Amino acid sequence: MRNLNLSEITQVVNNELEIFNQKFRDSIWSENKIVNIIIKYLLKQKGKKIRPLLVILSSKIIGEVTDRTYRGATLVELLHTATLVHDDVVDESETRRGLPSINAIWKNKAGVLIGDYLLAKGLMIAVDGQDFDFLKVITNTVKRMSEGELLQSSKTRKLNNDEETYYKIISDKTASLIATCCEIGARAVSNDESKINAMKNYGEYLGIAFQIRDDILDYVGKKTILGKPLGGDIREKKLTLPLIFALKNSNQKTANEILSVLKKKEKNMDVNKVIDFVIQNGGIEYSENAARSFGVKAKDELNIFENQMIKNTLSDLVDYILERKK
Amino acid sequence: MRNLNLSEITQVVNNELEIFNQKFRDSIWSENKIVNIIIKYLLKQKGKKIRPLLVILSSKIIGEVTDRTYRGATLVELLHTATLVHDDVVDESETRRGLPSINAIWKNKAGVLIGDYLLAKGLMIAVDGQDFDFLKVITNTVKRMSEGELLQSSKTRKLNNDEETYYKIISDKTASLIATCCEIGARAVSNDESKINAMKNYGEYLGIAFQIRDDILDYVGKKTILGKPLGGDIREKKLTLPLIFALKNSNQKTANEILSVLKKKEKNMDVNKVIDFVIQNGGIEYSENAARSFGVKAKDELNIFENQMIKNTLSDLVDYILERKK
Repeated sequence: MRNLNLSEITQVVNNELEIFNQKFRDSIWSENKIVNIIIKYLLKQKGKKIRPLLVILSSKIIGEVTDRTYRGATLVELLHTATLVHDDVVDESETRRGLPSINAIWKNKAGVLIGDYLLAKGLMIAVDGQDFDFLKVITNTVKRMSEGELLQSSKTRKLNNDEETYYKIISDKTASLIATCCEIGARAVSNDESKINAMKNYGEYLGIAFQIRDDILDYVGKKTILGKPLGGDIREKKLTLPLIFALKNSNQKTANEILSVLKKKEKNMDVNKVIDFVIQNGGIEYSENAARSFGVKAKDELNIFENQMIKNTLSDLVDYILERKK
Repeated sequence: MRNLNLSEITQVVNNELEIFNQKFRDSIWSENKIVNIIIKYLLKQKGKKIRPLLVILSSKIIGEVTDRTYRGATLVELLHTATLVHDDVVDESETRRGLPSINAIWKNKAGVLIGDYLLAKGLMIAVDGQDFDFLKVITNTVKRMSEGELLQSSKTRKLNNDEETYYKIISDKTASLIATCCEIGARAVSNDESKINAMKNYGEYLGIAFQIRDDILDYVGKKTILGKPLGGDIREKKLTLPLIFALKNSNQKTANEILSVLKKKEKNMDVNKVIDFVIQNGGIEYSENAARSFGVKAKDELNIFENQMIKNTLSDLVDYILERKK
């Protein structure tokens, strides 16, 4: 297997990414000084920009990137940034992308409010551009994301997640926005519903694979200074696919032992015992296979398109997501 | 002066309020069980519904209430509810409208997410109804509300608020949404920009009067079991109009003494000393005069309309806001 590097994969749209970055930076400011101080700081927390990248590629697989594409890319990146800022408040996270989080510096109040500001700003860009079809998909996505997170919270409290509910949760909380990125990119340049739908499905499957990979990395990823420590989901009592499978695949007695570990308070929890249990009971292998099967489905959706260069890029992106180590 | 009672004032639109309540309840649900459990609880926290009331009255002063009016009323009530839920997370409030807050029962996570859900749901109603002019004003309002709150936070930290900044803050954080309610109500039934503008201005002035009254009540309101205790703004180091004026109106030495009280930690703060200082230095009287002058401006905006019954109602509403004790 090739060793995939995100910036190599995406070099075919380097120009477009450059233009996007400029437009994004220009669009985010307020007339309010304190808002701009926080925004300036936020721009230092550089992310991978996978969502705007998907908007751009989803336009380019059909036609040429337009102003609508850039507005769509800005909208999704603002929305994504808003949800990250809210997530950090909710999870009381102290760091984000290797820097202190907004709530760590300016307290929860600023975190909730800047999240609301960024969401409103994103929607205003769509309203001003009269992109009403974007607004329709994006508001539905915000709704699904909050529903998915709330479902996850409730399942977490009861420690009774199953595979079907796991897929419902990750589809709502993660894949919905990735699918929306692809839908918006396609819709920005085309009215062909079969093409729009193919890209939306590609995004949905990619998003599911992305989240499964994320959940696997919580068990076997590399612990780095800048990244998250292993076992974060275990500490938060989140039952994700590797653990759900391992619990089903082990005998009742062992499963009950693991559940009683999870019921403990975080400081008394033997996280390594749960990690070892998941690995020994095939939870990682099972989840890797599941992620790969969604990767195959994502690539299949690309068959109807003709632009071989962008098809290769989107296909490489699937492999990158499946193989990423952090 | 008459003893004004909100339900008497608003009885001219009792039918419309009834229809609104039914439509609002029908529109708020999710397919997600846990979301609906929280929503059901939220509906028990009954508010005064002043915002949807203003939407309805602003339609009715021009013409007949329509489906667009009800959609607008639902949109603003959902948005308002979303901001209250976020406020409670931000302020770590344990109660709301006499019942435990969402964050007190379901933790901060649910508070942030249900707020996002309600906001998205409100916007979806506008998108589905193709009310794009509503979306334009509402997204701008969400932006202004978050900017206003953030400006207030930054001024709070520095204890250096002045009257001009105070008005900027309350215009953004409170009056913008009240003005939007009136604008949306008028726009739902009319294209006449002079009428729409008059109602928008009425709302802006009413909203400013409302917030000044709110800030006065923090000094001289009645402490009730269900309501907020006196001096909450002082504990949070919020410099509102009564205190800003009193500080300017007293000698430097006394002002510095009060500022040093405010710099203390909440548990060591002599709140009553600040309250007495504000009363003795005319802060309440000055603020009451200011609120009244905005009340007069609000009523002046009604002059261009012909529907005397609704004019009276909107005028009584100004008096109710100015005189309310909680």
